[in-house]
Amino acid sequence: MSELLQLFQNTRAQSVALCEPLHIEDYLPQPVDFASPPKWHLSHSTWFFEEMVLKKFVTDYKIFNPHFSFLFNSYYQTIGERAIRTERGTITRPTVAEVYEYRKYVDAHIKRLLQNAISPELEELIILGVNHEQQHQELLITDLKHTFSYNPIHPVYKENFNLTAQNNEEDGWLQISEGIYKIGFEGEGFHFDNEKGRHKVFLHDFEISKFLVTNADFLEFMEVGGYDNFKFWLDEGWNWVNENQIKSPLYWTKIDGDWHSFTLEGLKPIEHDDILTHISFYEAQAFACWKGLRLPTEFEWEAAADQLNWGKRWEWTYSAYLPYPNFQIAEGAVGEYNGKFMVSQMVLRGASTATPKGHERKTYRNFFHPKHRWQVTGIRLAK
Amino acid sequence: MSELLQLFQNTRAQSVALCEPLHIEDYLPQPVDFASPPKWHLSHSTWFFEEMVLKKFVTDYKIFNPHFSFLFNSYYQTIGERAIRTERGTITRPTVAEVYEYRKYVDAHIKRLLQNAISPELEELIILGVNHEQQHQELLITDLKHTFSYNPIHPVYKENFNLTAQNNEEDGWLQISEGIYKIGFEGEGFHFDNEKGRHKVFLHDFEISKFLVTNADFLEFMEVGGYDNFKFWLDEGWNWVNENQIKSPLYWTKIDGDWHSFTLEGLKPIEHDDILTHISFYEAQAFACWKGLRLPTEFEWEAAADQLNWGKRWEWTYSAYLPYPNFQIAEGAVGEYNGKFMVSQMVLRGASTATPKGHERKTYRNFFHPKHRWQVTGIRLAK
Amino acid sequence: MSELLQLFQNTRAQSVALCEPLHIEDYLPQPVDFASPPKWHLSHSTWFFEEMVLKKFVTDYKIFNPHFSFLFNSYYQTIGERAIRTERGTITRPTVAEVYEYRKYVDAHIKRLLQNAISPELEELIILGVNHEQQHQELLITDLKHTFSYNPIHPVYKENFNLTAQNNEEDGWLQISEGIYKIGFEGEGFHFDNEKGRHKVFLHDFEISKFLVTNADFLEFMEVGGYDNFKFWLDEGWNWVNENQIKSPLYWTKIDGDWHSFTLEGLKPIEHDDILTHISFYEAQAFACWKGLRLPTEFEWEAAADQLNWGKRWEWTYSAYLPYPNFQIAEGAVGEYNGKFMVSQMVLRGASTATPKGHERKTYRNFFHPKHRWQVTGIRLAK
Amino acid sequence: MSELLQLFQNTRAQSVALCEPLHIEDYLPQPVDFASPPKWHLSHSTWFFEEMVLKKFVTDYKIFNPHFSFLFNSYYQTIGERAIRTERGTITRPTVAEVYEYRKYVDAHIKRLLQNAISPELEELIILGVNHEQQHQELLITDLKHTFSYNPIHPVYKENFNLTAQNNEEDGWLQISEGIYKIGFEGEGFHFDNEKGRHKVFLHDFEISKFLVTNADFLEFMEVGGYDNFKFWLDEGWNWVNENQIKSPLYWTKIDGDWHSFTLEGLKPIEHDDILTHISFYEAQAFACWKGLRLPTEFEWEAAADQLNWGKRWEWTYSAYLPYPNFQIAEGAVGEYNGKFMVSQMVLRGASTATPKGHERKTYRNFFHPKHRWQVTGIRLAK
Repeated sequence: MSELLQLFQNTRAQSVALCEPLHIEDYLPQPVDFASPPKWHLSHSTWFFEEMVLKKFVTDYKIFNPHFSFLFNSYYQTIGERAIRTERGTITRPTVAEVYEYRKYVDAHIKRLLQNAISPELEELIILGVNHEQQHQELLITDLKHTFSYNPIHPVYKENFNLTAQNNEEDGWLQISEGIYKIGFEGEGFHFDNEKGRHKVFLHDFEISKFLVTNADFLEFMEVGGYDNFKFWLDEGWNWVNENQIKSPLYWTKIDGDWHSFTLEGLKPIEHDDILTHISFYEAQAFACWKGLRLPTEFEWEAAADQLNWGKRWEWTYSAYLPYPNFQIAEGAVGEYNGKFMVSQMVLRGASTATPKGHERKTYRNFFHPKHRWQVTGIRLAK
Repeated sequence: MSELLQLFQNTRAQSVALCEPLHIEDYLPQPVDFASPPKWHLSHSTWFFEEMVLKKFVTDYKIFNPHFSFLFNSYYQTIGERAIRTERGTITRPTVAEVYEYRKYVDAHIKRLLQNAISPELEELIILGVNHEQQHQELLITDLKHTFSYNPIHPVYKENFNLTAQNNEEDGWLQISEGIYKIGFEGEGFHFDNEKGRHKVFLHDFEISKFLVTNADFLEFMEVGGYDNFKFWLDEGWNWVNENQIKSPLYWTKIDGDWHSFTLEGLKPIEHDDILTHISFYEAQAFACWKGLRLPTEFEWEAAADQLNWGKRWEWTYSAYLPYPNFQIAEGAVGEYNGKFMVSQMVLRGASTATPKGHERKTYRNFFHPKHRWQVTGIRLAK
Repeated sequence: MSELLQLFQNTRAQSVALCEPLHIEDYLPQPVDFASPPKWHLSHSTWFFEEMVLKKFVTDYKIFNPHFSFLFNSYYQTIGERAIRTERGTITRPTVAEVYEYRKYVDAHIKRLLQNAISPELEELIILGVNHEQQHQELLITDLKHTFSYNPIHPVYKENFNLTAQNNEEDGWLQISEGIYKIGFEGEGFHFDNEKGRHKVFLHDFEISKFLVTNADFLEFMEVGGYDNFKFWLDEGWNWVNENQIKSPLYWTKIDGDWHSFTLEGLKPIEHDDILTHISFYEAQAFACWKGLRLPTEFEWEAAADQLNWGKRWEWTYSAYLPYPNFQIAEGAVGEYNGKFMVSQMVLRGASTATPKGHERKTYRNFFHPKHRWQVTGIRLAK
Repeated sequence: MSELLQLFQNTRAQSVALCEPLHIEDYLPQPVDFASPPKWHLSHSTWFFEEMVLKKFVTDYKIFNPHFSFLFNSYYQTIGERAIRTERGTITRPTVAEVYEYRKYVDAHIKRLLQNAISPELEELIILGVNHEQQHQELLITDLKHTFSYNPIHPVYKENFNLTAQNNEEDGWLQISEGIYKIGFEGEGFHFDNEKGRHKVFLHDFEISKFLVTNADFLEFMEVGGYDNFKFWLDEGWNWVNENQIKSPLYWTKIDGDWHSFTLEGLKPIEHDDILTHISFYEAQAFACWKGLRLPTEFEWEAAADQLNWGKRWEWTYSAYLPYPNFQIAEGAVGEYNGKFMVSQMVLRGASTATPKGHERKTYRNFFHPKHRWQVTGIRLAK
C-alpha cells in the first residue's frame, strides 16, 4: 500500500476513533454558531474528498447523495448554495449511520483511486484533504467539549482524556537578538497557503518565556481583581468582560469555594500547576499587561520556535491575521481556504493537545476572533 | 385492570407509538425556542407523574435520577431551578434509551400505585397527568414537523400521515340569536382550570360559518396582494409581515410556479379544497378583514359549537386569553398550569388533526401568541 | 367667534403653553421608540389639520411645505411614505422656529375656514383634530418627562407641576349587582370609533375599590419581596421583571436608603400617601394577585364609573383592547386611528393628571402594551 | 502673546467657527453610537482642558459645573463614572448657550495660566489638548454629515463646503526597493503615543499608486457586479454587505437612474473624476482584489509618503492597529488615549479634507473598525 493511501486511511480512521465513545445523540447538537456537530465534521471532511478529488479524478463517479453537497459544504461559496451555518444542529437526516455509509463509500473510491498512478495534483489534493480532516478532528473535540459543557450533568467523553492537564517542562527566558529573520514556510512538505511566501522580517531584541502561564499564575490575577480593573484591558476586551459577565476562564466554576473546570473526563478541581487554557485574546493581553509584560508577535514566536518547547497550547500572539507579502489567493474553491478570513482575527502559534499528531508545524498560522475561548489556548509572554 | 390504569397506559403507549417512526437523531433538535425536542416531551410528561404523583403518594419512592427534575421541569418555578428552555436541543445525555428506561420505571410505579385503592386526589392527578401528556403529544408532532421543515431534504415522518389534508363537510352560515349564554365547563369530567367557572355572557345576534377557510380561499387573498396591502392588517401584524418577509402560510414554498407545502409525508402540492392551516392570528384577521367579515369571539364560538362541525383545526378567535370571572389560581405547582399565561395571547377553540382522540372539548381554551403558526390552526368566519 | 373656533384656538394655544418652559434643545430628543419629541408632537398635530381638513376644504390650499407630509405623518399608511418612527430625534430641520411658523400658517387658514359656514363633516373633523391634539398634549408631557429622566442632572420642567402628587379622596368598596349593563358611547358628543356601538354586557356581582393603590401600599409589596417572587406574576411579566431588572416603579431611585422619584419638578422623596403611578400592567396584576384581589375588567369599570371618583390615573383593567360588537373601521386615513391596534394591548380606563381638561370621558378606551409605564398609570382593585 | 496661547486660541476659535452655520437643533442628535453630537464635541474638548490642565495647574480652581465631568467624559475610566455613550443625544441640558459659557470660562482660565511661566509639562498637556480638540473638529464635521444624512430633506450645512469634491493631481506608480526602513515618529514636535518608538521594518520591493481611486473607477466595480460577487470579498466583508444590503458607498443614492451623493452642500450628482470616499475597509479590499492588486501596509505607506501626494482622504491600509515595538501605555488618564483600542481595527494613513490644517503628519496612525464609512476615507493601491 502506498504511503499516501496509508496516510489517508490512518487519518480517516482517526476521525472515526475519536467518535468511538459517542452515543448517537452526541453527534447532533450545535449550541453556538462557531461550533459544529460531530456528524457535520464527519460529513464535511468526507464531502471535501468527494467534491475536490473524486468528482475530478474518477471518470463517471456517481456521487453518493446529491443533497450532501448542499448540506455539508461549509463556506465554499464557489460550489453553490449551502445549508445555513447556524442550523446544523437541526438536520437529523441523513442519520449518523448514513453518514458512516457515506464515509465508507468515499473511502472505497479514494482507495481505488490511490491504487493507480497518482499525479502530483492528486497527491497534493489528498494531502490537503488529510490536513483539512485533521483540522476538523481538532474542532470535533473542542466543539464536543463545548456542547457537553452545556449539560448540567457534566457528561464524560472518556476517562483519562484530558486536554488541559499538562505542566511546564521549562522555566526562564530566551533572548533573541535583533536582526533580519526569515518567516514563513519554505521547502517541500505540506503547508497552507497562508504560511507560504518566506520573507524577511526585521526584529528588535526581545525575550520570550520558555514556559506558559499556569492556572496558579492566572488565579493570582483573578485574586487581585484582574477582571474588575479596566486598566489592564483593551477597550473591546473590557466591554466583552462586562457584557458577558466574564469572571474566569471558560469552563471554570466555583463549587463550595473551590474552582473546578469542566473537562472531557467530567468536572475536575483546578490544578495549580497545570498550564492555563481556554482564555480569550483579551484575557491573554490583560494578564500580560498586569504583569508589565506583553504577548509576542507571531514573527518573534517563529524566530524563537526552534529553541522553545511548544505544542501544548495554541498560544495567542499580538499579531493580527494578515496576508504575508506576495500572498496570492488560489483560483477556485481551494482558494477560499484561508485568505478570506484575513481581517479582525488574531494569530495563534504552536499547537495544542487537541491537535492531531503530525499536523503541527512551526510556520503554522492558526487564527480566531479575539473573544474565542473554546480552543485549547494559552499564554506565552514576551518583553 | 381499572379504567384509570387503562387510560393511563393507553396514553403512555400512544406517546411511544408516535415516536415509532423516529430515528434517534430525530429526538434531539430544538430549532426554535417555542418548540421542544421529542426527547424532552417524553421526559417531561414522565417527570410530571414522578414529581406530582409518585413523590407524593408512594412512601419511600426512590426517584429515578435526581438530575431529571432539573432537566425536565418546564416552567414550574415552584419546584426549583430549571434547565434553560432554549437549550433543550443541546442536552444529549441522558440518551433516548435512558429516557425510555425512565418511562418504564415511572410507568411500573404508577401501575403498582393504581392497583391499590385510589383516592379522589390521586385519581384527579392521574387524569391531569394524562391530559398533560396528551397536550405534549400534540406538541411533539407539531414541533417535529417544525424541526423537519428546516431540513432541505424534506424528511418523511410517515406515509399517509397528513395533518392538513382535510376538506369541509358543510357550507353556509349558522345564525344565533342574541341573549344570555352560559360559557365555561360545568359537570363532572376532566377540564382545565382556565375553562372552569361557568358564567353568563350576553351575546348579540351573530352568524358563524359552518365551514373553515380553504387553501383556495386564501390563495385568492394572496393573489390580490393581501400580504402587500397594509389596510387589511393590524399594525402589529403588518410589522410582523414586513420584518419576517411573510408571503404565504407557514411551510408553503413555490416550486416552478406552483405552491407546495411541507408535510409529515414530505413536500406535497397545495390542494385547493383542503382546509387552510398554519396561519397566524394576524393572517386570520387580515383575511377576515379583506372579506369584510370578522373572526368570532370565543364566546360566540362556544355558544354555537353544538351546531358546528369542529375538530379539524384550532380556530383563531378574536378573544384574548383572559381569566373567566371567579378564576382562581390553584395552590402550588399545579396552579402554574394556565393562569400565568393570561396576557398577550389569543384564544383558539376547537381541536385539530394533531389533537389526541378524546382530548377535545367544546369548552377547551387553547392559546398562543398571535404570531405563532406551527400549530394546526385555521380560520372560521363570523359576521 | 364660533364656539368651534374658540375650542380650536384654545386647544392650539394649550399645546404652545405646554412648551413655554422648554429650551430649543428640549424639543429634539427621542430616547426610546415609543415616545416622540415635542417638536414632532407640535408638527404632527398641525399636519393632521392640514392633511385632513385644509387640503379637503380649502380650494387652492397651498401646503406649507411639501416635505412635512413625509416628516410628520405618523402611522397613516394611506397617505404615503413616512419617516422612520425611531429616527424622529435625528431630524433637526425644520427648526423649532419653522415648526411654529407652520402652526401659525395652519391656524390662520383654519380660522378663515371656520369663519364661513361650517358643514357637519368639517365640524366633525375639526373636533377630531382637537381631540387628536389633546392626546398629543398628554403624550408630549409624558414623553418629555421620560426624556428628562435620562439626564443625570434631573432637569426641572416647571416648579409646582407635579403629575403624581395626589391623594385618594375616598375609601372603601363599591358593590355592583349582576345584570345586563350597557357599555359604550351613546349620544351626541365627540367620541372615538373604538368606544362606539353601545352594547349589552352581562356582569356578575362584583366589588370595586373607591380608592387607588398608594405608594405606601406598593412599598409594602416591595418590602415583602414582591419583585422577587414569581408566584405573583404572569409568566410574561416575570420575564419582563428579570430581563429588565425591574425593582421599583419607573423613575424611582434609592438615595441613601430613601426612595425618591424623578418628577417634572426634579427629584423628590416618595410621599407615602400619594397615589402610585408609573407602573406596568404586569406590576398592577402582580400587586393585585399578592393582595388576593384582581383588576376590574373595562366593563366593570364603566358600569361602576358614575359612582367612582376617577381622573387621577389611567387605571389598568384586565381587559384586552379588542373591538366592540359591530365595530367598523372607517374608510380612509381616519379609519387608521384606533382599530389597527386591537391586539396585544390592555385597556386603561379613566384619565390622568396629564390628560387635558375636557378630554376625559367614562366610555374612553385608552390602551397600551402591558409593559409600558411612562404614562400616568395607576391601580384600582376589584373582587 | 505666546505662540502656545495663540495656538490654543486659534484651535478653540476654529471649533466655534465650524459650528457657526448650525441652528441650536443641530447640536443635539446622536443617531448612531459611533458618532456624537456637536454639543458633546464642544463640551468634551473643553472638559479635557479643565480636567487635565486646570484642575492640576490652577490653585483653588473652581470647576465650572461638577456635573460636567460626568456628562462630558468619554472613555476615561480612570476619572470615574461616565454618562452612557449611546445616550448623548438625549441630554438637552446643559443648553448650547451654557456649553458656550463653559468654553469661555475654561478659555479665560487657560489664557490666564498661559500668561505666566509655562512648565514643559503644562506645555505638553496644552498641545495634547489642542491636538485632541482638532481630532474632535474632524469628528464634529463627519458626525454632523452623518446626522444630516438621515434627514429626508437633505439639510445644507454650508454652500461651497464639500469634503469630497477633489481630483487626483498625479498618476502612475511609485517603486520602492526592498530594505530596512525606519518607521514611527522621531524628533521634537507633537505626536501621539501610538506612533512613538521609531523602529526598523524590513520591506520587500513594492509599488504604490500615486493616485487615489476615483468614483469612475469604483462605478466600474459596481457595474460589473462587484457587490454581488463573493469572490472579491473577505468573508466578514461579504456578511457585512449582505446583512446591511450594501450596494454603494455611504451617502450614495440613485435618482432617476443617476447616482447622487449627500454632501454638506446638499444632494449632488456623483462626479466621475472626484476621488472616491466614504467606503469601508471591506469595500477597499474588495475593490483592490477585483483589480488584482492590494492595499499597502502602513509601513509601505510611511516609507513612500515623502514621494506621494497625500492628505485628501484617510487611506485604508492592510495593517491592523497594533502596538509598535516598545510601545508603553502612559500612566493615568492620558494613557487611556490610544493603546486601549489596539485590537480589531485597521490603520488609515494620510489625512482628509476634514482634518484641521496642521494636524496631519506622515507618521500619524488613524484607526477604525473595518466596517466604518462615515469618515472621509479612500483607497490607494499597491502591488
